[in-house]
Amino acid sequence: MRLADLPTPCLVLDRRILQHNLAWMAHAVARHGVGLRPHMKTAKSVDVARLAGASAITVSTLAEAEYFVGHGFSDVLYAVGITPQKLEQVAKLNASGAAVMVITDDLDMAGHIAGQVLPPRVLIEIDTGEHRGGLAPDDPLLLDIAERLGPCLQGVMSHAGHSYGGRSPQEMLRYAESERSGAVFAADQLRAAGHAVPIVSIGSSPTARAAVDLAGITEMRPGVYMFGDLFQAEIGTHRGEDIAVSVLASVIGHRPAQNRVVIDAGAIALSKDRSTEATGNDQGFGLMVDVLGRRSYGRSIVGQAYQEHGMVDLDPILPVPYLPIGSKVRILPNHTCLMVAAYDRYFVVDEGDTVAAIWPRVNGW
Amino acid sequence: MRLADLPTPCLVLDRRILQHNLAWMAHAVARHGVGLRPHMKTAKSVDVARLAGASAITVSTLAEAEYFVGHGFSDVLYAVGITPQKLEQVAKLNASGAAVMVITDDLDMAGHIAGQVLPPRVLIEIDTGEHRGGLAPDDPLLLDIAERLGPCLQGVMSHAGHSYGGRSPQEMLRYAESERSGAVFAADQLRAAGHAVPIVSIGSSPTARAAVDLAGITEMRPGVYMFGDLFQAEIGTHRGEDIAVSVLASVIGHRPAQNRVVIDAGAIALSKDRSTEATGNDQGFGLMVDVLGRRSYGRSIVGQAYQEHGMVDLDPILPVPYLPIGSKVRILPNHTCLMVAAYDRYFVVDEGDTVAAIWPRVNGW
Repeated sequence: MRLADLPTPCLVLDRRILQHNLAWMAHAVARHGVGLRPHMKTAKSVDVARLAGASAITVSTLAEAEYFVGHGFSDVLYAVGITPQKLEQVAKLNASGAAVMVITDDLDMAGHIAGQVLPPRVLIEIDTGEHRGGLAPDDPLLLDIAERLGPCLQGVMSHAGHSYGGRSPQEMLRYAESERSGAVFAADQLRAAGHAVPIVSIGSSPTARAAVDLAGITEMRPGVYMFGDLFQAEIGTHRGEDIAVSVLASVIGHRPAQNRVVIDAGAIALSKDRSTEATGNDQGFGLMVDVLGRRSYGRSIVGQAYQEHGMVDLDPILPVPYLPIGSKVRILPNHTCLMVAAYDRYFVVDEGDTVAAIWPRVNGW
Repeated sequence: MRLADLPTPCLVLDRRILQHNLAWMAHAVARHGVGLRPHMKTAKSVDVARLAGASAITVSTLAEAEYFVGHGFSDVLYAVGITPQKLEQVAKLNASGAAVMVITDDLDMAGHIAGQVLPPRVLIEIDTGEHRGGLAPDDPLLLDIAERLGPCLQGVMSHAGHSYGGRSPQEMLRYAESERSGAVFAADQLRAAGHAVPIVSIGSSPTARAAVDLAGITEMRPGVYMFGDLFQAEIGTHRGEDIAVSVLASVIGHRPAQNRVVIDAGAIALSKDRSTEATGNDQGFGLMVDVLGRRSYGRSIVGQAYQEHGMVDLDPILPVPYLPIGSKVRILPNHTCLMVAAYDRYFVVDEGDTVAAIWPRVNGW
């Protein structure tokens, strides 16, 4: 099967680039002597997890947890605040032999977890500046929650997601250090109160790349580095040529008066995420490249996205060749995590346009 | 099964409101004596199509076409520009007894269609102001394409999607009239050249509601009216109390210092569509209401969306009761078509919080 034969829109994954990205991060983390618990929220694929050589993983949904456990991954961190109802689902998975670990920053929830017959392992979520979830490292509630959790407490975790606001290696380094020092401070508080803290878990892709010192950290949880995207390239945490996924689309119309072509990848196929809008280089809903992934069309950007139509503003200077109806192109993602979410499989390529494998994805919740 | 038992996030569909919306549009179109070919791109459900009593339907993907044909719907318009490869898929469906109709605005494609052994029925796409697809009503290419299509030509179609830019009944009426007059002008050109034009198809939800005169039109294709959303309510084409779908979510965290709660419906569960941003009343990624769909929390809006976390800015004045971890809430959609796209089923409710049915959706391509 060749790319030209695939129904569009669909998702193309370049295995060579993926392998390069996986090796790069494995090295970046290994140089600090800490563990890598890759976040599978973007890839959502056992094939990718296996290629990463991961034994411990992170997930963002219980659907992912069930899927990975079902494929032999036992040590799974569900890194979104747990609820009583979800705790029941985790209990079922763990009763089947898995070791799904959960997180909380809530005192009542801690009591609820500890009250289970066989409570899962728990990390307390620490807020090191993102202000999404977690306790401040010096919040006195930390010790109350730890007290209530008792022996199921395994440590702390934090996610410096605000690092995506960074725009220079210096800024990324500062975010990485505040993520590290905040998590370690919280861990030290717990240890001083007599708790064992075997796990101190941090990491976003930017901070995992930027970190110089990971003293006190036991594991990192980056995820988006596997695929990369235009936004990551823009903020300097991923090379533009190392974007591993793209959407294969077909030309379905021409608007020569507006120097546009219309493609069959619209708002669902590309998502409406506009992350690069916040950088100096807005790349709309993605960058159009040729069917082999080469940047043959200059700055040709999906400027507008209807549900099933993408309007590509062709490069205003570079002459883009006429693309007859049905011509295949690829769209590089603005924000990869959301773009891939619309698809149930990857068409994997190694060289040229031959499809070497089809890898399923687990979507939903 | 009750809403409180459902895993979150998931999609809730209020059947009574849906029925009200279906009846309203059926009446609005019937008063003009034209046919209704509802667009199933939003609902993507045979159960909804059956409730609409539709015999002819419109779809936005070939996955929808296959699904609806497989469930007994024969007269299907695939309303996105056709390509040679997709024509093969349509041919297979039609060989199995379906009557899938396609659209084009391209001369080469017209020749390709006409060259098929058993070409499908074709409508020529007319651009009545949206500038997405289609020929201008007076484009001389219209007659060339018609000539090339020959007997498979069935008529013309247009979609005044730019009507969503309208902000008053007067503007909507103007869009509706330009959609009507443009399509009819093109149809008349074709008839003057000797072509039979049995189908003159137009319609977006706003223009279908606003139209006063549909002279010369044979069918309307609205879709989003089935569900409605905050954006439609904002531009006055759907009553706010008639929004039929919402996302059921669970509270997973509290940020009292920011007057926020965190829910487990984020950027995938709600989409990153921000349609209301273009109105005077930006409602972020959706409005939080209570588990029964009542507006109990005032202006509590999902102001920020991470992949799996939604940050709800609670109403700054109205005191919102404390919602313990695990509390269920619902989020009304900013743009319904994109929000529902993340789900593979509807949990259907009639009264209160009892789940009366589960209806599947067809996603992908």
